[in-house]
Amino acid sequence: QGTRDHPPAQAALRDRLLAAVVACFKRHGAAAIDTPVLELRETLTGKYGEEAKLIYELQDQGGELLALRYDLTVPFARYLAMNKITNMKRYHIAKVYRRDNPATTRGRYREFYQCDFDIAGQFDPMIPDAECLKIVHEILSDLQLGDFLIKVNDRRILNGVFAVCGIPESKFVTTCSTVDKLDKIPWQDVKNEMVEEKGLSHEAADRIGEYVQLHGGLDLIERLLQDPKLSQNKLAKEGLGDMKLLFEYLTLFGITGKISFDLSLARGLDYYTGVIFEAVLLQQENDHVEEPVSVGSVAGGGRYDGLVGMFDPKGRKVPCVGVSIGIERIFSILEQRVKASGEKVRATETQVLVATPQKNLLAARLKLISELWDAGIKAEMFYKKDPKLLKQLQYCEDTGIPLAAIVGEQELTDGVVKLRDVATREEV
Amino acid sequence: QGTRDHPPAQAALRDRLLAAVVACFKRHGAAAIDTPVLELRETLTGKYGEEAKLIYELQDQGGELLALRYDLTVPFARYLAMNKITNMKRYHIAKVYRRDNPATTRGRYREFYQCDFDIAGQFDPMIPDAECLKIVHEILSDLQLGDFLIKVNDRRILNGVFAVCGIPESKFVTTCSTVDKLDKIPWQDVKNEMVEEKGLSHEAADRIGEYVQLHGGLDLIERLLQDPKLSQNKLAKEGLGDMKLLFEYLTLFGITGKISFDLSLARGLDYYTGVIFEAVLLQQENDHVEEPVSVGSVAGGGRYDGLVGMFDPKGRKVPCVGVSIGIERIFSILEQRVKASGEKVRATETQVLVATPQKNLLAARLKLISELWDAGIKAEMFYKKDPKLLKQLQYCEDTGIPLAAIVGEQELTDGVVKLRDVATREEV
Repeated sequence: QGTRDHPPAQAALRDRLLAAVVACFKRHGAAAIDTPVLELRETLTGKYGEEAKLIYELQDQGGELLALRYDLTVPFARYLAMNKITNMKRYHIAKVYRRDNPATTRGRYREFYQCDFDIAGQFDPMIPDAECLKIVHEILSDLQLGDFLIKVNDRRILNGVFAVCGIPESKFVTTCSTVDKLDKIPWQDVKNEMVEEKGLSHEAADRIGEYVQLHGGLDLIERLLQDPKLSQNKLAKEGLGDMKLLFEYLTLFGITGKISFDLSLARGLDYYTGVIFEAVLLQQENDHVEEPVSVGSVAGGGRYDGLVGMFDPKGRKVPCVGVSIGIERIFSILEQRVKASGEKVRATETQVLVATPQKNLLAARLKLISELWDAGIKAEMFYKKDPKLLKQLQYCEDTGIPLAAIVGEQELTDGVVKLRDVATREEV
Repeated sequence: QGTRDHPPAQAALRDRLLAAVVACFKRHGAAAIDTPVLELRETLTGKYGEEAKLIYELQDQGGELLALRYDLTVPFARYLAMNKITNMKRYHIAKVYRRDNPATTRGRYREFYQCDFDIAGQFDPMIPDAECLKIVHEILSDLQLGDFLIKVNDRRILNGVFAVCGIPESKFVTTCSTVDKLDKIPWQDVKNEMVEEKGLSHEAADRIGEYVQLHGGLDLIERLLQDPKLSQNKLAKEGLGDMKLLFEYLTLFGITGKISFDLSLARGLDYYTGVIFEAVLLQQENDHVEEPVSVGSVAGGGRYDGLVGMFDPKGRKVPCVGVSIGIERIFSILEQRVKASGEKVRATETQVLVATPQKNLLAARLKLISELWDAGIKAEMFYKKDPKLLKQLQYCEDTGIPLAAIVGEQELTDGVVKLRDVATREEV
C-alpha cells in the first residue's frame, strides 16, 4: 500500500527529471554521498516530533534495532557527526519511507524519492541560506513548471511572536505545527485548534493571528523591526535582522520577485532553528480569480543548527541549512503534462534493429549485432530464428528505433548491409 | 552492521562504475524499471530456498506484512505477473538486503547494489541466454578488470547427472547446494557433506564426483552427449543439446575463449530451471603458479522459466533469463586500484571558484556567481564575507577546481573579471 512500480516510460521520465535536479546541484559544487536505507532506531528517535509514529520499524531478528530512514536530513547529520566533518556541501537523491496515509492521486506515497542539497559549516550569516533559495529558484525555473512562489520565514521570528503573545515556551513547538496549517485551512479553524486542542487563551490566539497572517517583502521586515513588542524580543530581532540580510543577497541574485516573507510558514519538523522556506506552484484557476491558487508545496527546507550536535558525544554543533526538492509532486505534474501533450516518451535508446528478410539468417544477425555492440552502437534484434521482416520494421515504429540494419541473402553475397531509415523508408 | 555510508570520493567512483554498466545495458536495448524496496512477505516466501532466513522483515505495525527485497529478480517476476507482461527486456540497478554475516573486507555487505539485466518472453532457445553472456563479457572487458572466466552449466544437466547417479528427486535441490561449494572446498569435503549431512550413499556421491569435476568446451559437450548413461536421461539430453546451441551462438559472438562449460557450477537459488552461469576474475598469483587463482564471482545469472508463473493466479509461465553484475565486488577492486595508483577522484565537478582579493566585495561575488550559475557554469564561492585570496586559491588546488574568477577593486572599476588558471597561474 502506498508504493508503486515504475514502468519503463515513467522510469525514463523520472531519470530525465532527476538529471535536471542533479545538474543544478552539481552546478553549485555539491558532492554526492550515499547512506543506508536502514538506520538505527535510536538515530531517528526524537527528531521528527509528532511525525515519529510514521517511522517504519524493522522486526527484531537479533542484533540491532533498525528502522527505515524517514528523510535524508537526519542521516546526513548522523554522517557528519560520525565522521567529525564540520564543513560540507552535499546532495543526496534517494528513497525515504513514511507510514502515512497515502494520497497516491496527489503524488503522495509511502515510499518516495527525496532530492536534498545541504550546506554544513560555520559561515557568515545567510550566505548559504541564500544559495539554497537560489537553487529552488533555478530548479523550478529550469523545469518550466509555471509560476511559483517561495515563502520564507524564520523559526526565531515565530518563537519571538509566540513569546510576545504570551505563549509559554513549552507550547512553542505544538503551536508551530498548528500555525503551519494556515495554508490549508482558514484562520478561524487554526484559532479554534489553538484554543480547543492546544489550550491557548482566546486573547493569545488573536494576538498570534495578527502576526501570522502577514506576508510581504523588505517593507514588512522593516515594519516588524520597528514593532514595539517584537523589537523588544531578542530572538525575533535576530531573526528579522537576518531576514533583511537574506533579502539583500536575494536582490543580488535577482530573485526577490518570487520570494515572499510569510509569517504563517512554520513547517512541521522539530529540528529547524532559523530560516525556513517552502516553494509552491501557483495556478491561475481562471481569469476572474484575482489571487493565484496554490497547488501544493514542491520544495522546502531551512536551517537546523542543532541536529548534528545531537549525534556528537560532546554535543559539538555543526550549523546546517538545506533544501529538499519535492520530486514526486513535480513528477506527477510532468507526467500529467506528457500525457496531455500526447508526447511518447521512449523507454529505450536503441539506435538500430538488426533484421533479416529471409529464413536461416540468424547467424548473420548474431555476427552483425555483435560487431555493432562492440563498436558501442545501441542495437537490438529479435530472439526468433526466422522473424518476419514486416514485424521487425513494425517493432521499430512502435518503439521509436530510427534505423534498421538489414542482412538478406543478397547482402550476404555482396558483402554489404542495407541500412533503412524507418521514418522515411530510405535505404542505402 | 554490514552497511556503510559512501563518502563523496566513493560515491563519485561508484557513479562512474554504474554509468559503464548502464551504458552496456542500454546498448542492448534494455528499458529501466523501478520497484519498491518493500515487498509483501508472501511475495518472497518460497523463492530462496535455504537463504530465506536471511530476509529482513518489517515490524507488524498494522496493515500488510512486509519485507525488504532480497534480490531484484523476484520483484521483476512479480512485476511481470502483476501487469500481465509476457515480453520485456529491462535493467534495474538498486539496493537489496540480506541478513548475512557480512564480510565487509571482501566487499560483502548486508545492504548492497545489484545491477540486473533480464529478458522475459517466449523465444527460440538460447538466443537471449547467449546475449546475457555477451553482456557479462562486454562489461568485464570494458572495466578492464584483468583476466576472467565465465563458467556455464545447466540445471537440467545437473538434475540429469543426479538422476543417473541414483539420487532421489527429493534430494536434487539440497545436493545442488552442496555441489555449488566445489569452487571453494575440495571434492573430498564436498563428498563428506553429501554423505554425512545430505544422506547420500558413498557410491552415489562418487558417481556424482566423476561428473561434477569435469569442465571444458564443445568437446566436453559432445563427449557427454555420447555418455551411455547421461544420453539416456531426457533432461540431461535437452540441457546438453541447448548447451551445444549456446556455444554455437557464443562462437558467432567471438567470446568462447572466456567461457567454460563447468559441471560443478550449481548456484544456490531455487528458481533456476535451465542455463546457469557465473563469472570469476582470474589472478596470476605469481609466475610459478600454473593455474590462475579465482578471486571470486563478479557476475552470475541463469534461466528461471517458472518464477513468473508462481505469481500468476492461473500459473501462466513467462520464460526468463537474466544476469546480475556483482557491482560491490567490482567496486572494491576498483577502489583498491585507485588507492594503489594514487589517483585523486574529484568529488565535485566545479569549474570555477568566484574569488575576491580584498575586503567588502561579497556583493560583487554574489552578483558574478549568480550570472555564472544562470549561464550553466559550475561555480562555487566561499561563504565568508571577507575570505583571504590565498585560502581561496588553496581550496581550488585541494579540490581540483581548474579556474578562479577574481573580482577585486581594480576589476570592478574596469568592469572586467580576472580569470586565473589555477595550475599554470596564468591570468587573463
